[in-house]
Amino acid sequence: MGKKNKQFVEKITAMEDDFAQWYTDVVKQADLVDYGQVRGTMIIKPYGYAIWENIKNELDRMFKETGHTNVAFPLFIPESLLQKEKDHVEGFAPEVAWVTHGGEEELTERIAVRPTSEVLFCDYYSNNIHSYRDLPKLYNQWGNVVRWEKTTRPFLRSSEFHWQEGHTAHATDEEATEETNRMLETYAKLVEEYLAVPVLKGRKTDKEKFAGAKFTLTIEALMHDGKALQSGTSHHFGTGFAEAFDINYLDKDGKSQFVHQTSWGLSTRIMGALIMVHGDNRGLVVPPKIAPTQAMIVPIAQHKEGVLDKAYELRDKLAKVARVDIDGSDKMPGWKFNEYEMKGIPVRVEMGPKDIEKEQVVLVRRDTGEKEFVPVAEVETRLVELLDEVQSNLYQRALDHRNEMTTVAKDMDEFKEKIEEGGFIKAMWCGDVSCEESIKEETTATSRCIPYEEEKVADTCVCCGKKAKELVYWARAY
Amino acid sequence: MGKKNKQFVEKITAMEDDFAQWYTDVVKQADLVDYGQVRGTMIIKPYGYAIWENIKNELDRMFKETGHTNVAFPLFIPESLLQKEKDHVEGFAPEVAWVTHGGEEELTERIAVRPTSEVLFCDYYSNNIHSYRDLPKLYNQWGNVVRWEKTTRPFLRSSEFHWQEGHTAHATDEEATEETNRMLETYAKLVEEYLAVPVLKGRKTDKEKFAGAKFTLTIEALMHDGKALQSGTSHHFGTGFAEAFDINYLDKDGKSQFVHQTSWGLSTRIMGALIMVHGDNRGLVVPPKIAPTQAMIVPIAQHKEGVLDKAYELRDKLAKVARVDIDGSDKMPGWKFNEYEMKGIPVRVEMGPKDIEKEQVVLVRRDTGEKEFVPVAEVETRLVELLDEVQSNLYQRALDHRNEMTTVAKDMDEFKEKIEEGGFIKAMWCGDVSCEESIKEETTATSRCIPYEEEKVADTCVCCGKKAKELVYWARAY
Repeated sequence: MGKKNKQFVEKITAMEDDFAQWYTDVVKQADLVDYGQVRGTMIIKPYGYAIWENIKNELDRMFKETGHTNVAFPLFIPESLLQKEKDHVEGFAPEVAWVTHGGEEELTERIAVRPTSEVLFCDYYSNNIHSYRDLPKLYNQWGNVVRWEKTTRPFLRSSEFHWQEGHTAHATDEEATEETNRMLETYAKLVEEYLAVPVLKGRKTDKEKFAGAKFTLTIEALMHDGKALQSGTSHHFGTGFAEAFDINYLDKDGKSQFVHQTSWGLSTRIMGALIMVHGDNRGLVVPPKIAPTQAMIVPIAQHKEGVLDKAYELRDKLAKVARVDIDGSDKMPGWKFNEYEMKGIPVRVEMGPKDIEKEQVVLVRRDTGEKEFVPVAEVETRLVELLDEVQSNLYQRALDHRNEMTTVAKDMDEFKEKIEEGGFIKAMWCGDVSCEESIKEETTATSRCIPYEEEKVADTCVCCGKKAKELVYWARAY
Repeated sequence: MGKKNKQFVEKITAMEDDFAQWYTDVVKQADLVDYGQVRGTMIIKPYGYAIWENIKNELDRMFKETGHTNVAFPLFIPESLLQKEKDHVEGFAPEVAWVTHGGEEELTERIAVRPTSEVLFCDYYSNNIHSYRDLPKLYNQWGNVVRWEKTTRPFLRSSEFHWQEGHTAHATDEEATEETNRMLETYAKLVEEYLAVPVLKGRKTDKEKFAGAKFTLTIEALMHDGKALQSGTSHHFGTGFAEAFDINYLDKDGKSQFVHQTSWGLSTRIMGALIMVHGDNRGLVVPPKIAPTQAMIVPIAQHKEGVLDKAYELRDKLAKVARVDIDGSDKMPGWKFNEYEMKGIPVRVEMGPKDIEKEQVVLVRRDTGEKEFVPVAEVETRLVELLDEVQSNLYQRALDHRNEMTTVAKDMDEFKEKIEEGGFIKAMWCGDVSCEESIKEETTATSRCIPYEEEKVADTCVCCGKKAKELVYWARAY
């Protein structure tokens, strides 16, 4: 074990020593991402993309089950169109990449590479919605957007990122509210059930809501280092965009009404959550439900007669119940163990001459390192069970961690002390943005959400001591 | 029938009258596309996107079956990187959209919005390929690219389009050749078997090959109006890019070697082929294998008791064997017939009180308009058969059309006469680019491909009369 651990130390920084460096090392060593040549852009490599593809496929299925259809809107937005909604343009203009030339020709109007597509959908809706019969519009698009960020990190904050953005239009405020809630629940389901990451669900404060939204719902996850990561947001626009873009329809009584809109997005940022919630000092840990390879077969002493044949037989057998791969290359088993631990493959299956003799295989869990010997006749059943156990354990472990790292603060002294330990702080707030701002200034913590489930841990605002309005989860965040 | 036809005349231009206008009308009326605000960009609407998604899913499956993995490379290319391969930059620079500002700040180096991603993959490969063990690299990416075109048309030529681009690196020229061929065959299979569009397979002349390629393979389809459409291309780069980007590896003997590369792409242009090969004066015709809805149930006299219940029962039953939908809205059956014919849904299923009484349903084929009465007990079997028949018929009809429109020309007089009738002209060529250029100048026809299967229709070049080298398919093209 001594030697093996040393190899890891060489490969990746221990998370206790430098969490940021550990993250960068894992991203690189697990073959998820490489850096693009333009500042802050990333190359998502085959393994990273395969994980994202699995996330995408599950989410896309959920969207379709709830009546949404995919579309593809343009990458380009004329500057004048972007400026139509005041709050929105103020929020995004500082981060826009501008196209000014097409071939040799200088453009008469600058073109924004979309930082998000609200204005494109609004423009379309204003031309295509006429009657209550045209509603609701439940559109989603998978694509790339660009935000010219000052400091960037793979997945967490990149100049270009991949995501889906849903844009819907409804006849009534209630329907839009239902949709906003439904999509947040969809995100929560994806992230909790598939990524095994527990989330807090709640509403953003006005300061933290989306530029142009009436309100924003969010799911917030806690990373291993005690920092929060916003993992998906769902916005209710009310009629703000509809008024700016003149999106109206004739209701059943022939009266003109503005539509009520929502938008919601989940991006490759979620890959950051995956890494920082489940990863350890051996590398990535991928939850079975989204793992491109759920079990990797490593033949032992494969040069011995019959071992490889048996291992491939096992592969064919297990491929019927799980996503299984085999490494029959001439690399040493030790190298293979390290490699697939680094990649976070949930289960390793070992099979050598002794195992063949005993008609057994060895299953090794990535999450706990536990090893078990399973009769060949039972391996299909056991593997499926074990994958479920790994999935549940990852979720439970992350939930325990979050619970341990969630504390209460009743005044700023307590707040400042506890924020140094990381995690979520539950504290009452008066609702005044100036308190929110001074908390951020004094502690660098931000309000993460006002939870769905109301709670009361004190009567007065943690910051100003005046009467509290509601409980807020605070944390330092990515 | 008179009245019904008239309605269509109002909706879309007849293809005999104005094929270009017919195309635009179908694209719009079948709800495939709308125009974006930036010149030449398009909004792919739900129905258009659903068809593209089906095409994409089939092709993606084929890629994975042949060992390819998906990745996501950046949208942005620094100008200096784009300039590394001389032929390549000359080919693409005139069409590049340039980003010059990020937020408020002017960039020190202009950034190209990718017109294609060869240089990005080459740059990556040069850093990531070291040994023969790293080969082959079989990468593909689904994404959007931008080419600043002067004249644009939905799907056929747009400023931004969606596609996949495969980029591979191999140890030997032979392997790269195999890959180039394999991917062209993959495209041919997709387009012929799924889109029911027959294609010519062949090699491009040097004049028409990809900027920077050693040779380009192509599949060429013939549209209803007799013009050709390049429907997918596969390029062999030899070591040209490898030399420009210094992509080398140590072979088994420890000797440094350049890699041999390929790239291949198929884009939303193929939607244009779909429309222009199968469409008619009633609108779009979608081949069953890629139709989002393969059969649409239209209840007749649905206000009568039991009709809607029976129709939904039928829907549930048929949904087990095909992609089926039902229109139970209160619109008139005539409106529904027109609408789903316009959308090209392969089969319409009618069911009214009389049919229920007789325990039958009516199936109507979109391709021929033929109607048949089928006992309810047999409808599942019959529908599946019928969808197969429609698929085969569409292919056969398109093949017959192409065969009828393929002629031979032995001299320029014959060439000029025949090109006016449209279609492919088979004519011998001396191999000299000046002949190719004068043919284009005199007739606006271009060389489409040198077919895989060699043929000889004369001894001398159709243009200069000198000794012919090979047979070329020529056509006016999109």
